[in-house]
Amino acid sequence: MTTDRTAYLVLASLTTPGSREVGSLIRRSGPAQALDQVLHGTGVSPQLTAALDASLKPNDRNPAVVDHIADDMLRRADRLGARIITPADDEWPPALADLATINHDPVHRDTHPPLCLWLRGPLRLAETLQQSVSVVGARAATAYGAYVTSEFAYGLAERGWTIVSGGALGVDVTAHRSALAAAGATIAVLACGIDKAYPAANAAVLQQIGDEGLLVTEWAPGTQPQKAQFLARNRIIAAATKGTVMVEAGSRSGARNALGYARLLQRAAMVVPGPITSAMSVGSHIELRQPDTVLVTRVEEIIEEIGSVAQPAPTGHRPDEVLDALQARILDAVQPHRATSAEQIAAAAGVSDRDAKRTLPLLAELGLVVASPNGYRRAGEPPAVHRERD
Amino acid sequence: MTTDRTAYLVLASLTTPGSREVGSLIRRSGPAQALDQVLHGTGVSPQLTAALDASLKPNDRNPAVVDHIADDMLRRADRLGARIITPADDEWPPALADLATINHDPVHRDTHPPLCLWLRGPLRLAETLQQSVSVVGARAATAYGAYVTSEFAYGLAERGWTIVSGGALGVDVTAHRSALAAAGATIAVLACGIDKAYPAANAAVLQQIGDEGLLVTEWAPGTQPQKAQFLARNRIIAAATKGTVMVEAGSRSGARNALGYARLLQRAAMVVPGPITSAMSVGSHIELRQPDTVLVTRVEEIIEEIGSVAQPAPTGHRPDEVLDALQARILDAVQPHRATSAEQIAAAAGVSDRDAKRTLPLLAELGLVVASPNGYRRAGEPPAVHRERD
Repeated sequence: MTTDRTAYLVLASLTTPGSREVGSLIRRSGPAQALDQVLHGTGVSPQLTAALDASLKPNDRNPAVVDHIADDMLRRADRLGARIITPADDEWPPALADLATINHDPVHRDTHPPLCLWLRGPLRLAETLQQSVSVVGARAATAYGAYVTSEFAYGLAERGWTIVSGGALGVDVTAHRSALAAAGATIAVLACGIDKAYPAANAAVLQQIGDEGLLVTEWAPGTQPQKAQFLARNRIIAAATKGTVMVEAGSRSGARNALGYARLLQRAAMVVPGPITSAMSVGSHIELRQPDTVLVTRVEEIIEEIGSVAQPAPTGHRPDEVLDALQARILDAVQPHRATSAEQIAAAAGVSDRDAKRTLPLLAELGLVVASPNGYRRAGEPPAVHRERD
Repeated sequence: MTTDRTAYLVLASLTTPGSREVGSLIRRSGPAQALDQVLHGTGVSPQLTAALDASLKPNDRNPAVVDHIADDMLRRADRLGARIITPADDEWPPALADLATINHDPVHRDTHPPLCLWLRGPLRLAETLQQSVSVVGARAATAYGAYVTSEFAYGLAERGWTIVSGGALGVDVTAHRSALAAAGATIAVLACGIDKAYPAANAAVLQQIGDEGLLVTEWAPGTQPQKAQFLARNRIIAAATKGTVMVEAGSRSGARNALGYARLLQRAAMVVPGPITSAMSVGSHIELRQPDTVLVTRVEEIIEEIGSVAQPAPTGHRPDEVLDALQARILDAVQPHRATSAEQIAAAAGVSDRDAKRTLPLLAELGLVVASPNGYRRAGEPPAVHRERD
């Protein structure tokens, strides 16, 4: 009996990422049944059958071999210091499921959710994405673009937002670096195998992201980056986060593709304007003339757009009722009357310094803790999240 | 029997420009009756009566004196090389009537249409405003703002659009100068008397606008500019034109006030973005985050927003059916097979060079004439304005 996880892994290894046909099969019948259909060519298109016939050896349709394919992938991940997750795993980000909803758009045919993700890094994906924003833009960023990216990514990371980008030159790498500099969480979604340092100029920072943040890709090890893969990758960047900020983009920039996905997925599509005399803002201004696109100039405006774990729909809940387990644990470790450092609070809560440093500013924004030069202490009676103005 | 024109003039001389009460009286009873009520204090507020009692000599309520007040104004205009128009005159721009519609807004109480306008310059006001756009912005414009203003105002003027602005330093004066440089029409709406060159640094260009374009004000000669008058003036700039382009604005710029009026009046409210690092674009970006505000980066985008005489609502009319008398006359003077210069065409049509130079690019845009290095010739069969794309 094939488990869902194994079925996802084998389907991922046999079919093209994002395949609409495979995605639909899985939605209809579940992954194990879908794998069975794919392997035996029942109820699948001639194109898919032909593609499999070309790549599979006759023996590959044997259930034992199926397990072997999956084991092979897992061993490969292990060797690379990576891990693989599928929609059957806890670490899988639920937001990616929204990708199945945009297939009504004829120009975005193969944009189904990935079937597996290769990960490298210490962070837990689903959890880290809960409060996340994508920052994308031109590879050939100007000094202006680099400055704005750095301000925004640092400021967002400082406030506990995970910075997601594509690991590319220019805006992407500046966003990752600024998040790391703020001791924040950052995730690079790659368009190549987890074992490729692409672009080579970013090898060191990609290594650092793998050590402190998270490298993510749906492409098997060894896969070289290709144009179509960059576009496919953008759908993950857009779907995984609450919103996408585009800092600079020439008229044909790939960043516009990511922003378009954000809009299709009804995530916040945010754009930084620039001088109309700059070629690197032409794409930004084209996007800003589209509906459902928000001009942003400050970190506060971005947070206003993407909301926060701390600001759910107005339910009238008190803020301490909307905390997740980690946040509640950290809050419990904050002293009521005496400020203690983030490190002390982390130790008391039994969480990492990083987690404490990311969470405490959020708790402060919620009015649950009070920041002071000596650290944090509990606030008095926490105010309700959604109070009427009088 | 007091004529409407005389009544408007006297009401203008006795009451505050934009007065909601006087505007409403006129709407209800017409100007002659409104003047009568004002002079005799019947059905008017105690405030208005008190204000008049303070300024009128007892004898002033006599009908003969009423005529004398009007005559006095006209003589004064004459002496200054100016003229006065009222809503009773042909030259009065009908668009200003829309100002009576925004009084529902409690913060814009005294924004009624002016009762008279003092003019100096060779252009006819209503006609010149038919195809007009306001270009406003910061007094302390940056080099970027000045460059963009000049590109836009020159490009719009070249295409036959009248450039309206406030004659101030920075963006305003750059807009006026660029329109003049393009041999286009430009109108400065002043916040002081027609006899004041304010600001003094712009004296020469204001003189030139009075000689080649049009100076316009609702304030009596001798009136010094004051803060409230700048705001009142902005309502006229916004109401008189099809749309307002704001090029640069600090967070507290008066240009934002003009843009706000444009929005209230349902004119196109257009804003040029800039670097988010520039204090002179802070106000621009605040406005761009408002609904009903369009980001513009090129002259074509502005024209797309404000439409044009040449692009009316899609009626299916052929373009030569939507021309006004002047445009038709100029089109008639264009040779069918041989290009002739704008000056030759002007001479053949019996119109000014300026009119021909403003109109021909428009006719070319409509596909009615073809521009070439030697001038203009008639196009073949003109295409319909609104063709389906296939």
